[in-house]
Amino acid sequence: MADAFDWPIRVYWEDTDAGGIVFYANYLKFFERARTEWLRSLGVEQQRLRDATGGMFVVTGTALNYHQPARLDDCLQIRTQIQELGRASLTLQQVATRINPEKPDTLLCEGSIRIGWVDAAQMRPSRMPAAIIDVLKHS
Amino acid sequence: MADAFDWPIRVYWEDTDAGGIVFYANYLKFFERARTEWLRSLGVEQQRLRDATGGMFVVTGTALNYHQPARLDDCLQIRTQIQELGRASLTLQQVATRINPEKPDTLLCEGSIRIGWVDAAQMRPSRMPAAIIDVLKHS
Amino acid sequence: MADAFDWPIRVYWEDTDAGGIVFYANYLKFFERARTEWLRSLGVEQQRLRDATGGMFVVTGTALNYHQPARLDDCLQIRTQIQELGRASLTLQQVATRINPEKPDTLLCEGSIRIGWVDAAQMRPSRMPAAIIDVLKHS
Amino acid sequence: MADAFDWPIRVYWEDTDAGGIVFYANYLKFFERARTEWLRSLGVEQQRLRDATGGMFVVTGTALNYHQPARLDDCLQIRTQIQELGRASLTLQQVATRINPEKPDTLLCEGSIRIGWVDAAQMRPSRMPAAIIDVLKHS
Repeated sequence: MADAFDWPIRVYWEDTDAGGIVFYANYLKFFERARTEWLRSLGVEQQRLRDATGGMFVVTGTALNYHQPARLDDCLQIRTQIQELGRASLTLQQVATRINPEKPDTLLCEGSIRIGWVDAAQMRPSRMPAAIIDVLKHS
Repeated sequence: MADAFDWPIRVYWEDTDAGGIVFYANYLKFFERARTEWLRSLGVEQQRLRDATGGMFVVTGTALNYHQPARLDDCLQIRTQIQELGRASLTLQQVATRINPEKPDTLLCEGSIRIGWVDAAQMRPSRMPAAIIDVLKHS
Repeated sequence: MADAFDWPIRVYWEDTDAGGIVFYANYLKFFERARTEWLRSLGVEQQRLRDATGGMFVVTGTALNYHQPARLDDCLQIRTQIQELGRASLTLQQVATRINPEKPDTLLCEGSIRIGWVDAAQMRPSRMPAAIIDVLKHS
Repeated sequence: MADAFDWPIRVYWEDTDAGGIVFYANYLKFFERARTEWLRSLGVEQQRLRDATGGMFVVTGTALNYHQPARLDDCLQIRTQIQELGRASLTLQQVATRINPEKPDTLLCEGSIRIGWVDAAQMRPSRMPAAIIDVLKHS
């Protein structure tokens, strides 16, 4: 368990606000994209998973700290790593850094995302399919 | 037919981009909010409608012209009006103006939105329920 | 200090995702709108403030818990309250509930938002203007 | 002039709505990302351009037709091509298709985007820098 997964994100106009920087809510989008690609790298496609099991992941908690702002055209890297893995939920640590051309990278935003498993029809918490737990354990 | 419906929109941080102005794609969101409230003013709730009929509106075409930019804290008014009403689709004219405190209003963005009716399961075009056409005709 | 401020939010298509519920990142947008209106209710307009002082608020931390999902057409209420007020930052508690027609309200999402004051040009933390602290103290 | 530029886009949760499909306004975001990468492929970075010239591109008109919906996990390709190039504006044709694993691609959405050049301070239309026109002419 616990190999880190890195995913690059380019900052576009849609991501910025009138402060000239990335709108802080958008880091949750960046982190979601990185989690989706991390799952995909493990062979897990969420739409297919839902069709097959009737269940889906939902975010149950987020805690983020913002250190430095990102700007238009910046290239970010999102690191994703399992912090804790249970039977009905998992917690991920995610970190956004800016890849600087000729300087050390800059820490922009980091935090943890708690994710639960629910049946999609009722939105009730339930245990993750064993196959998923297995995949996550060996990630 | 064809009474205009006005809906106010305040510009928040989320709506702006690093150019210091409202991101142009967000006018489609403003227009959608105004259409939803227009339908609501006619007694039509889309979620309930879908549960009852199995159908839903989908946007099939948009054509917008951008005249002046809006900025943080601006108060906009969105005017919505039926341009054309068929059996399986309708076209709305929508106009965003800025309400200025002591000057005439400013035209920001206007255009037309073409909307079709589909069955939600297959996403196939079909005829609007007669009750809906009736409501729209007398709006 | 510490009067609560309530702001209503309607859930539109733009707020939902393919899970059929409000996309969790969007609560940060709802909370931001509510904070903006709370400041406005205290006579503080952020664009004008920036023009006048060269400074602006930035979010430095967010911690949210998601309890129940919201859906299209739901009417939410966002409650905003100061939790802690310093010289260079403040922390707000914000709570989203669904206003149910004939049942008690439902708790959807709550958490705290930490906000700092920076000079807009350098994005460096600095002390809030005394006039702002004064307004917040007596809110 | 007029080489087409292709850019891939993955559909994430943030892009979808409660209809289970990509929210139509988001194609404007996809098209913007593709335009940014197209400009980048020509050596043009918009933030740097603005710092250097004081000007920036703004979208002045959009006209889109929606043919088929996209869904979570779909892989899209955005094709970008110059339709018309003037001294103060250009029009691009942009097309989104879904890359299907074992079938021909599906046309999802296409349309044209009209872009003007403005000085960023006043937001007044002006002529594009000759160097930019030159780059676009030979793209």
